[in-house]
This record gives sequence, structure tokens and C-alpha cells, in this order.
Amino acid sequence: MTSPYKDRQAKLSSEIEKRGAQGFISTSVADMLYLTGFSGEGLIFFLPEEKPYIITDGRYVEEAMKLKDIKLVQVKPGNGYIKTFCMLIDKPISLFCGKDFPFKYAEYIRKNSSFGLFDADDLTCEIRRSKSKEEITLLKKAAELSCTIFYKVKDMLKAGITEKKVAAMIVSESLEHADGVSFDPIVAFGANSSIPHYRPQGIELNKKDIVLIDMGVKFSGYCGDITRTFIFNGEDSLFFERYQLLFKAREKAISSIAENVELSVPEKIVREFLGDEAKYFIHSLGHGLGLEIHEKPVLTSVNEINHIKNFMEGDVFTIEPGLYYPGWGGIRIEDDFVIEDGIVKKITF
Amino acid sequence: MTSPYKDRQAKLSSEIEKRGAQGFISTSVADMLYLTGFSGEGLIFFLPEEKPYIITDGRYVEEAMKLKDIKLVQVKPGNGYIKTFCMLIDKPISLFCGKDFPFKYAEYIRKNSSFGLFDADDLTCEIRRSKSKEEITLLKKAAELSCTIFYKVKDMLKAGITEKKVAAMIVSESLEHADGVSFDPIVAFGANSSIPHYRPQGIELNKKDIVLIDMGVKFSGYCGDITRTFIFNGEDSLFFERYQLLFKAREKAISSIAENVELSVPEKIVREFLGDEAKYFIHSLGHGLGLEIHEKPVLTSVNEINHIKNFMEGDVFTIEPGLYYPGWGGIRIEDDFVIEDGIVKKITF
Repeated sequence: MTSPYKDRQAKLSSEIEKRGAQGFISTSVADMLYLTGFSGEGLIFFLPEEKPYIITDGRYVEEAMKLKDIKLVQVKPGNGYIKTFCMLIDKPISLFCGKDFPFKYAEYIRKNSSFGLFDADDLTCEIRRSKSKEEITLLKKAAELSCTIFYKVKDMLKAGITEKKVAAMIVSESLEHADGVSFDPIVAFGANSSIPHYRPQGIELNKKDIVLIDMGVKFSGYCGDITRTFIFNGEDSLFFERYQLLFKAREKAISSIAENVELSVPEKIVREFLGDEAKYFIHSLGHGLGLEIHEKPVLTSVNEINHIKNFMEGDVFTIEPGLYYPGWGGIRIEDDFVIEDGIVKKITF
Repeated sequence: MTSPYKDRQAKLSSEIEKRGAQGFISTSVADMLYLTGFSGEGLIFFLPEEKPYIITDGRYVEEAMKLKDIKLVQVKPGNGYIKTFCMLIDKPISLFCGKDFPFKYAEYIRKNSSFGLFDADDLTCEIRRSKSKEEITLLKKAAELSCTIFYKVKDMLKAGITEKKVAAMIVSESLEHADGVSFDPIVAFGANSSIPHYRPQGIELNKKDIVLIDMGVKFSGYCGDITRTFIFNGEDSLFFERYQLLFKAREKAISSIAENVELSVPEKIVREFLGDEAKYFIHSLGHGLGLEIHEKPVLTSVNEINHIKNFMEGDVFTIEPGLYYPGWGGIRIEDDFVIEDGIVKKITF
């Protein structure tokens, strides 16, 4: 596998020029990893046709020295990345600021340099959106490992085990057999499952409890993400009914997806199919997966959120409709998908 | 224990007025947790003498509804926190922006409202710096649990175990017996220990290897953080010599700490004591601990970083000198300290 960084930097160069600025600055770990392979903390400063600067501190220098084709700058103790940047380079040119760029850094640059700054939080997100063959291979592996570990842990469930213990098992398996979790696992028993972003507690598992597990692992930097909801050792007719409704809504949504279809379509289909129950579906339908757990595209009925508003080749994303009834519990069914060679494929099982 | 939030909000009100603005806005989870008890994602908007607004989405509403004395606003799908904020409130007043406030949000507010925005990244960091009795109790517990779990895991080390497996054990124990880890554990064998922020790999443990473990747990939101470095099953005279040097430097530094002493003093003492070896000490001496793993004060020889430049009652912080020799390995010794009733106490063991 040849180094992918030059191609990615070329994409960035072209997008910078198209959108009308002259350079790019970012403190996003995902941006630095994507553009240079650097995975520590620091700052990337990029001018088209030049090797990017990586500004970092002593903790990450040994790692950064192994990278090719970057200009490495180590900050002096106490100076920080931005102060070092402003002391090193000062040009009256316009810069795009990358994902989650801190306001304090922007204010410092404005006061201490001649750069013009413009928000371009979505710039690299859009560049990173369509995944390469190599990235898809890694995302498939992350999806597969997420499932393998889920089923292994599911087999170890027993009455009396706590939510926290199950979360601990997931994290432990993910660290051993993958590169750790892609987010803190959600493990909710019984009525706790109605809280979409619940944090595991010392609650014990009982027969006939709803079990909702939302988890994923990282593999070579790329994220997997699945949710399974089921009844532990038993049956429940109301659960079955609601699960069936959600499952059918989801199948209808999945079958609507194809290249060029609007990203808002599948969520609208789910909401329409759910009818009155749609008021219990309190989040959006899904999100892109990549070096970060939440990437473009966003699968929501509000389409303005995405720059390119249609599904496209190389999209990797979750589909995760849910129904949440406070006091009773919740159901979420989440799988990962890719559009590869024009075909929509489920990559989780 | 009565609710601490009113007192904290009063402190914030007074600091906002002292520094000359009229309100405060933040997306920092630590800020929201400190000021209201809300631990989800969202935005806090605060005006002195008023109940703070918490703007969040459907995923966190069930949790937020349990909180007292806040004005809860749920965003409509697709709107996002900032758009909702700008639609809800618009006043020609000046706002301080909290920790890590995103540039993109600041730009959106500037284009869509009459608020004036000012960077105050350190405002709540300074308010949160001196810990209350209740917070110190929680930080002591986090420190104690960090140590208990470290020694438990240390006892389970055996030849052939991998760095990743040890990290998995730490995370698993921390999820079961505390509220999870306060950061991804660093477990480095042999020469890997020379990389201060190393990420555990599939490397196996051998007799006489250097073992460096940097870990900590959370307890009720508060962070512990310790590092231990030792030789596994054996002795090494060069390691012993370097360890002794670092240990003596550290003891000298600790004994220099007292209320009102400058924060830069202990690091200067360590560097002076290390002499020529100080070039292998490539990070700062320590950092504050609290709801975040890195808080004020920063213990560095560059004193400008801190707003209040001296040690003070209620400071809780790490002391963690290190020596890193690429190719050979590294040594770091880290403990947690508090200044309580005017006395410097070590709270790890």
C-alpha cells in the first residue's frame, strides 16, 4: 500500500483553492491523522503544494519524527502550539480553520498575526466523506470486530451481572482484540434503555429485562458502531410488537438507499412508516463513520446539514432508528453500511 | 450535602462582572457539570442572577429534566444548539465564551445575533481551580481507587502478557470499581517507555523489562492520575541510578511547595537538580486535577500560563517528573497532592 497522504493533501489543496482561501490550519486529531499519519496532539498548518507543518510538544516528538514529508516543529516549554505558530510564520493570507478549531486560538491569531481566518469546520469532513478502497477495507474490519465482540459478550450474559460489568467486558475485549472502543459503550437494562445516551450503572440483569447494547471498536484508526436490543431469557409481547414495527420501518428505509438518492429520504420513510409512534424516535437516523465515530454524511430529514445532499460512492454510515418510551424502555437497531461499486452493502451482522 | 450549584453560579456571576462582560456561554461538558450538574452534550447560557439555560437534544432530555433550577430547551431536529440559541435569545450584550468554545459557533453567533463575544477560555478554569471540601473528598477517593486498581493489576502481571492486555485489565477494573478511567491508560514495556504518551500495543512482557504504567480513574466525575515505573522481575543498575536521581529531584520539589509559593518553583528545582539530565525531562512537572484530567494550575517553569501564579488553598494537582531516553526507555513518577488547611498532602500511595 503506497502512502495515501499526498492524494489527500492534493484534494485539500484543490478544495482550498475552490473555496477561495490560501491555506489551512487545524488542531483536529482526525485531520492530522488523515493528512499526515500523525496521531498525537498538536497543530497542522498547510499551504497548497508545500509539505505540511506539524507543531507538537515533547510528548509526541519521537512519534512525529518517524513520519515522512512533514515539517516538524517542537514547541518550547510553555509556549503552546498557537504561540509557536504565530512566532514561526506570519503572512497576510487567508486561512481556513479546521474541525472544532478553538475560538481562543482564532482570537490569539487575529491579535498576533496578519492571517485572515475563516471557519471551514466542514472542509475536511467533506473531503473525508467518500472513503477509498483501503479505508473501506479497514471500516469493514472495524464493523466485523464490533460484531464478533458483541456476540462474544452477549454469550457471557447471566442473571445478576451489572451494566457496568458488561461495559467493562466490552472495553476489555476491544482493547485486546482491536484498537480499543470507538466510544464508551452504552449498556442499559430494563427501563434504562429509554435513555439514548445512557451511562452504565451498577444495575443488575434480571430475567425478561430489555437489554440495549450500543458499542463499537476501532481498527487502525477507523470506527465500527452497532446496537442490539433484546429480551434477556424470555419473551415480551409488547417488546416484540414494537421491535417488529421498528424493524420493518428500517427495512423500508434501507431499501430506499442508492447512489444519488437524497440523504433525507430514509429518515422520512422511517418516520412516515412509524406514524404516531414517530414521536418516540427522538434522534436522527444515522451518521457517517470513519476516523471519527460521527462523520459526514448525516442521515437526517433536515437535509441542509450536508454539503453534498445525496448518497454517493464511498459513503460509510450507520442506520439506527430507535423508539424510546420513558418508564418502559427503548429499542434501537443499528447496523453499518457502505456504498461500494454502486451497491449498498451491510457490513455488520 | 446541599446543592453546590448556586454558590458556583454566584462565583461565576461575580467573575463575569469583575472582568467586564454581561453573560457566559459554553459547550464544555465540565462547565455544564460544574455549574448545573448536567452531564450530557449541549450548551449553557448564563446571565448573572438568572437560572441558566441548558440547550440540548432528545438524547439527553430525560436526564436534563431531573435537574433543578435550570431552563431546559430541547433543540428541534436538525437545528443544533447554536442555531436554537440564536433563535431563542438575542441581546446586544457582551458574552464570555467558555472552555474550548468552537470558532464555528462564535462565527455563527456573530453573523446571526447582536451578542458581542469575548474569549474567556480560562474563566471557569480559574473558578474551578480551588476545590471545595466536598470536591477534595471526591478527588481523594479517585486518587485512592486509582492506586488500589494499579496495585491489583500490578499483582496480575506475568511474563508474556501484552501491553494491550494490561491496559484492558485497568479499564475493566476501573469500570467495575469506579466510574471508568479518567484517560486511556499508558502501558509501555521496555524501550517503549521513552514515549511519554505511548499507546499500548501487542508487545509481550519479558523479565527485566522496564514497565511504565500511567493510569487513573474517575469517581463521581472527579479524576485521579498516577504513574509507576519499575523493573519486572529483576534489577537493573542503570535504571536504579536514574530512578534515584529522579526520585530525589522530586522530593526536593515537593518539599518546596506551600501556599503562596510560585507555581514555577518546583519544576525549576527539578530541572536544576537534574543538571545535564534535565534535557531528558521533556514535559512540564504537573497539572491540576478536577472534573477534567488537565486543569489549573499548570506546574511549569513558565509561569505566565496561570492567572493566579502561586499555590493556593484547595489546589489539587499531580507532580510527575520524567526522564526519557529514546532507545533505552523512560521513567516517570507521578502522585497526586492537595493543599488542605494550609498543608501539602500526598493523596496517592
